[in-house]
Amino acid sequence: MAPNMIPDIVISRLPIYLRALDRLAQEGAEVTSSQELGRRLGISSAQIRKDLSHFGGFGKQGTGYKIHYLKEQLRQVLKVEREWEVALVGAGDLGSAVARYKGFAERGFHITCVFDSAPDKVGKKAGGFVIMSVDQMVQEIEVRGIQIAMIAVPAEHAQGVADQLIAAGVRAILNYAPINLNVPDNVRVQYIDPVLHLQRMTYYLP
Amino acid sequence: MAPNMIPDIVISRLPIYLRALDRLAQEGAEVTSSQELGRRLGISSAQIRKDLSHFGGFGKQGTGYKIHYLKEQLRQVLKVEREWEVALVGAGDLGSAVARYKGFAERGFHITCVFDSAPDKVGKKAGGFVIMSVDQMVQEIEVRGIQIAMIAVPAEHAQGVADQLIAAGVRAILNYAPINLNVPDNVRVQYIDPVLHLQRMTYYLP
Repeated sequence: MAPNMIPDIVISRLPIYLRALDRLAQEGAEVTSSQELGRRLGISSAQIRKDLSHFGGFGKQGTGYKIHYLKEQLRQVLKVEREWEVALVGAGDLGSAVARYKGFAERGFHITCVFDSAPDKVGKKAGGFVIMSVDQMVQEIEVRGIQIAMIAVPAEHAQGVADQLIAAGVRAILNYAPINLNVPDNVRVQYIDPVLHLQRMTYYLP
Repeated sequence: MAPNMIPDIVISRLPIYLRALDRLAQEGAEVTSSQELGRRLGISSAQIRKDLSHFGGFGKQGTGYKIHYLKEQLRQVLKVEREWEVALVGAGDLGSAVARYKGFAERGFHITCVFDSAPDKVGKKAGGFVIMSVDQMVQEIEVRGIQIAMIAVPAEHAQGVADQLIAAGVRAILNYAPINLNVPDNVRVQYIDPVLHLQRMTYYLP
């Protein structure tokens, strides 16, 4: 099946499988099954087998999946076997916390430049990075060929920043600003807004 | 329709609608339409009308939605018109950043206690809160009747912490640890793992 025929919903589950496989490997396991993965993830084993069948299956009936092999395959499919350069825009409280978070680099996403519009921040450091002026942003991203950016600016500036990033060549945006972004079809956006997640749960509380 | 018959997927979209309505209100708008909301959110207007019809619709054909009224209705449905107490477990780099994040309290979620297992952290402050020992966690949560908790501990401790929280009465968990949690059916879990979101986008990059 051609890559562009794999449904987005399947692609969105693959990182979850990869994370569970990393965990199993850390625990010393070498083989797993769709049943075991399903139990750990709260996803049906049939769904997992169907999702993985998009890529040729990776497993044989009755023998389970070889964890190391499946991990490597998923990493290739998702293109996370490479190291990615990431730009971060916004060095306030939230942006600084993002810059300090070690989990990105540990999993292959390297923040290599941080931008902010406040003159008193430019030249200072956030999580080990020297903050650059947003005036340099488009040129810097073009020169470095950066495709991934994280936005951690106030909501009212997020769309403007996104427009500039896209003009500079960014094709994947992780948006921490609490606002939906309008982007062209060839650009992907994902959102981090923890309050939304809390609001998805209170409905179920007494 | 009885509340428990509204599909989870609809409930999961309501906070997104609410956020867009908040934004429209901030911009001074008083009325909106499913078309305008759809354009802002990248969701079809038909989907939005269908979702809102679960709650009686709130709008009249051709006249659009009154923003203030619709906001209040959604806030009531989601139970976010109240203020909620939240417990935070883990006061490392990530937990401290969560404790400092002002967006929670601004939208009605008040972190009122922070727990950590490290003796050198207990008694110190994280985001204005005195860190308590996890040994006090179950009792403290029971006494306060807290139903919502955020987990920001290393992956290997997350399940154990979740089990304790649930035993203490917590029914909604926002998990920042990069691992899936096993919880009973009467407990809700949502996950924050920004790397997963990045991994959902790299597949589409050249």
